[in-house]
Amino acid sequence: MNIKDLDTPCLVVDLDQLEKNIEEMGVLAKDHGVALWPMVKTHKSEYIVKKQLENGAEGVLAAKLGEAEKMVEAGAKKVMMAYPIIGEGKLKRLVALTEKAEVFCSIDSLEVAEILNEKAITEGIVFQCIILIDSGLKRLGIAPHEVKKFYNSLARLQGIKIVGVGTHGGHVYGAMNTESVMKAGEEEKQSVLKASEILEGLGVTCHIIALGSTPTVMVMESYKGIKQIRPGNYVFYDAIQVALGVVPLENCALRLLTTVLSVPEAGRAIIDGGSKMLGLDAGAHGNTNIRGYGIVKEKPWIVVQGLSEELGKLSYHPDEVNLKVGERLEIIPNHACSVANLVEKIYGVRNNEVVEEIIVTARGLSQ
Amino acid sequence: MNIKDLDTPCLVVDLDQLEKNIEEMGVLAKDHGVALWPMVKTHKSEYIVKKQLENGAEGVLAAKLGEAEKMVEAGAKKVMMAYPIIGEGKLKRLVALTEKAEVFCSIDSLEVAEILNEKAITEGIVFQCIILIDSGLKRLGIAPHEVKKFYNSLARLQGIKIVGVGTHGGHVYGAMNTESVMKAGEEEKQSVLKASEILEGLGVTCHIIALGSTPTVMVMESYKGIKQIRPGNYVFYDAIQVALGVVPLENCALRLLTTVLSVPEAGRAIIDGGSKMLGLDAGAHGNTNIRGYGIVKEKPWIVVQGLSEELGKLSYHPDEVNLKVGERLEIIPNHACSVANLVEKIYGVRNNEVVEEIIVTARGLSQ
Repeated sequence: MNIKDLDTPCLVVDLDQLEKNIEEMGVLAKDHGVALWPMVKTHKSEYIVKKQLENGAEGVLAAKLGEAEKMVEAGAKKVMMAYPIIGEGKLKRLVALTEKAEVFCSIDSLEVAEILNEKAITEGIVFQCIILIDSGLKRLGIAPHEVKKFYNSLARLQGIKIVGVGTHGGHVYGAMNTESVMKAGEEEKQSVLKASEILEGLGVTCHIIALGSTPTVMVMESYKGIKQIRPGNYVFYDAIQVALGVVPLENCALRLLTTVLSVPEAGRAIIDGGSKMLGLDAGAHGNTNIRGYGIVKEKPWIVVQGLSEELGKLSYHPDEVNLKVGERLEIIPNHACSVANLVEKIYGVRNNEVVEEIIVTARGLSQ
Repeated sequence: MNIKDLDTPCLVVDLDQLEKNIEEMGVLAKDHGVALWPMVKTHKSEYIVKKQLENGAEGVLAAKLGEAEKMVEAGAKKVMMAYPIIGEGKLKRLVALTEKAEVFCSIDSLEVAEILNEKAITEGIVFQCIILIDSGLKRLGIAPHEVKKFYNSLARLQGIKIVGVGTHGGHVYGAMNTESVMKAGEEEKQSVLKASEILEGLGVTCHIIALGSTPTVMVMESYKGIKQIRPGNYVFYDAIQVALGVVPLENCALRLLTTVLSVPEAGRAIIDGGSKMLGLDAGAHGNTNIRGYGIVKEKPWIVVQGLSEELGKLSYHPDEVNLKVGERLEIIPNHACSVANLVEKIYGVRNNEVVEEIIVTARGLSQ
């Protein structure tokens, strides 16, 4: 089936580009001697994680247990939970997962450590944990200089074992140029190196010294001391990555295929995809490099000006663009990771032929 | 099961409030002598549409064919497509739907009219259509004064029959006070009344003279001349409706149930629900009455300051609020209509007991 025979709105992914993106990140990790543990919240798909595992991924990072379970079913042998796990239902699932794969947890509070510890002791197991470090995002994590105090507070907990440190320098998404991207990467690196030094000084072997976001891992020159990277977005890339200068537009693999439903006046067109297909991500931290809600492929001068739930409003100069009712457009989303979660499947295309239906296996699995 | 035994993050709806909201809109329509055709994109749920049909809804308005099909399966006998339908796959489904329910289409261009006309003639049927009128939103629709010219351009099309006019005054969501809400409602009313007068003057019987958004239908004093209203959001209400002054906070029926995962410093807490549960709607048209990404129930002084995909960041004054790891919060979303689409099911609660699992039947059906 040709792409023109697909009903709209729908998501399509260029499989050649997807494979190239996945392969190149595998090579980057190998060249720098670091283990690649991709964050899978981007795609939530067994089909795509298999390609990552075939291209050098040693394990995967998961935002939610539901994702982790699907990725293990797809063949991942090692999985790390990116955020603290709380709640009896989740703890049961976490224990069950340890029987199928090597599982790592992330902690940044004594409260969560105690909860994990209690469950581990009841089950007669030990949870391998990393300490989450804040490298500038000001979200989860403790400051590197607090690691000693925090580690010592865990000393009596026999059910958890600290095996390293990790951070996500998500503040990079506020960067306006390559220099700022590199600065965020340096902050990530220094924060985990400092934290791991403190831990090693306390006699802890840091098997894991982890960092990563798609932009920072791509600009980092030296990975000396770093053991694991976990970018996520790179499988697709998106308009935000283009705005950050991480990749050129042609590296973006994911698109919304949409139809013009109405051209009520010159310079305004309405398409059949809205926020329920493209999300409303407008960049982060006031990043003014982002314009509108996506980039219209091959017609980047069209602005995706606004999104209702099921409709999008395009604006353009009528002397330069002449859209017609029924015309189809492809739009690179601002934030691919939000978008994949909105659909049941993504159509995989090669040279405009639809050759795969990629199921978003863990769509909506937020627990 | 008690609400405290639910795993988080998840959506819960207060069934008593949901039923009250649905009942009151039914009474409003009856009192004003207008037919109620609720927009179902808000909930996409067979469970909820059944309650609307039991409470006076004569038909339903659907954004997408997938929604329309599910609502007809749930018992709707009349269904209107809110936006133009294009594409061979969709036209086939539209024809199939006419065999199960009375179907109405919406058009605002000769191109779509011709597409529908051709299909109708091939199938030996006639599509009943309304003309979409722009009442100020500047999205779909033609200006009232263009109705004569537009109608005359359709004269030779034997497969479509114009049966009325409709508008959605969505620009009301930019309103900052009740006066502006009333003004948007008046614009909706005048636009369809003017358009219907023109059509009646051309010999067209307007069986349908339709308008509506949740805010405007609730402030409109007189419905003289109007035949149909189609609010959607009212089943749940949300923080945007509260900011517009449409309802008090306690009328909001839908909440995100979430757990505090980390309190990295005084005044900052991280929860396990992010943009994949709450959406990123921040109001419309620069409405500064909206603060953050939702309202924390019973603790409205907490600001939902930012949403990552799977995490939310709360900020508050540490002297006033003292959140703890493991604590649960309920958050009223900014825009309920985006939120319901993100989950497979919503837990229905009465007095904190979970008594229903409401399936979001048409989740993700964007075609």
